[in-house]
Formats: sequence, structure tokens, C-alpha cells
Amino acid sequence: MRYEITELTNMVLVIDKKNNKVLVEDRKNQNWPGYTFPGGHIEEDESFTVAAQREVFEETGLHVHNLTLNGIKQFSMTINVRFMCLLYSTTEFSGSLKSSAEGKVFWMNLDDLLANNRLADGLADVVKIMTSPELSEVQYSGKNPKFY
Amino acid sequence: MRYEITELTNMVLVIDKKNNKVLVEDRKNQNWPGYTFPGGHIEEDESFTVAAQREVFEETGLHVHNLTLNGIKQFSMTINVRFMCLLYSTTEFSGSLKSSAEGKVFWMNLDDLLANNRLADGLADVVKIMTSPELSEVQYSGKNPKFY
Repeated sequence: MRYEITELTNMVLVIDKKNNKVLVEDRKNQNWPGYTFPGGHIEEDESFTVAAQREVFEETGLHVHNLTLNGIKQFSMTINVRFMCLLYSTTEFSGSLKSSAEGKVFWMNLDDLLANNRLADGLADVVKIMTSPELSEVQYSGKNPKFY
Repeated sequence: MRYEITELTNMVLVIDKKNNKVLVEDRKNQNWPGYTFPGGHIEEDESFTVAAQREVFEETGLHVHNLTLNGIKQFSMTINVRFMCLLYSTTEFSGSLKSSAEGKVFWMNLDDLLANNRLADGLADVVKIMTSPELSEVQYSGKNPKFY
């Protein structure tokens, strides 16, 4: 197959090393609510890295720098339509935290986030990719994640 | 924009650390001939990592393990059609080298490859992403690469 339809998105784990916290968004989106990380859709012709920086700024007011691409979440939504989320992380940011209409943003300890009952569906799988150097992909077949 | 048409491909830098060489393919493809690395198209529903392993095996006879995702090469081919190549590297492989119809494969020193006049168009940009931990993307606007 040479071409397929793709929904191209990103998500960024912003880490405050000094305070041992990560940046969390309580996303209001009805299709995928709950505690997650900032991110969104990549625009036509846009750099993937710039798109990730833009989304973080729009949703949190922070400028993020030196993003690391940790891996990709992907699955087939239907025949020949693939959802892709590029997963980044960074410890470098500047600016003042400011929530957007997408949802309130705040800092939280990562272990507390993972144990929270408001954690968005599948976010633990994303965290696993973002924090495991030996992994670079999670693919879903139904609800079942496969890690690579 | 929510959806776009994508050509999803991969390329793998296989490194023989012991002999300080990398695996090169003299690709016959008329659209993109010359010295490059093994890789190809991702099939529908296929894991990106599995696709990279499959392509290397098909084109070189080698099984590759523990791939690292180093970054992505991407550009708009036309309005709403994006070319994407996922760039991997590994130092772990097994099996016996065997060329395919795609082109002869052989081991070569990386510096010698980069200096060779048969180097495929743009391959130096790909090598830069594959070997620079601080970079994860090269995007083209025409022939001009932008690195992120």
C-alpha cells in the first residue's frame, strides 16, 4: 500500500525536574476526557516539532524547548485510516502557566497522576513509551496495547 | 485539519560496531537511486517497528533487533499529501547478508559513505537525524532541509 489517510497528532510530557512534577491537562473533550498531557493536531505543512511546541503553548501558556521524540502511539481507526500521536518529552520550558478552553492545566507528581481515577483512557500506555528508552511504539488492536 | 493523505515509510541504519561499518543498499529505484539504507513502505495495520524489521529482512537477509526511533523525515508532496519516513537505528542484528532485487547490499564505513558520489539524494540529512540525539526531524520545503 502506498497511501493511507492519517490523523496526525502529538502529545508532550513536560517535566519539572526540580519539583518532580509533570504538566497535566484535565481535558474537557467528550471523546477523550480526563487527566492527560497537552497536545493536539498537526496542521498541513507544519513541522511535527513546531506543532508540538505550538499546542503546548496554546493549551498551557508555556514555551517548551529541546523536545525529545520518545515514540509513537498508533492504531487503525477504520480500513485505511490510521490515528498517529507523536510522543515527545522535555525538561526545558519557560513562561507562565495559563489554562485554555481545552481544560485546566496544573503540575502533578507522575506517580500520583498514574494512580488517579481521572487518568484519561490509555494514558498509562503513553507514559510507558515516553519513559522507557527501549520502547518507541504502542499499537492498539481494539483495547489491547502492543508495545515495541 | 483533521485528516491528511500520507505515504508512510521507514529506513534503518544498521551499525556493526565491531567493524565500524554500516549496512548500505545500492538502491536501483529510478525515483531515488544510489547508496542508501534498507527500508520501505509500512503496510496497512502494520506496527511501524515490525514494518522496519520486515523491510530490513526482505532487502538484506538480516534480522534486526532493539530498534531505536531516532526521528522522522517528512515533507508535503502536494496539498494535503505528506511523505513520512520513520528513521531507526540499531547495533543488533543476526543472519547472513543477502541482496534483493531492490539493490545490492554491503557494509561500508559511514564517513566513506557520506563522501561517496553515489550517495542517494538527501541521505546526509537522514544520517544527521539518525546520529544526532538532539535532533528528531528533518522537514523539506523544496530542496531545503529544516532540522528540529
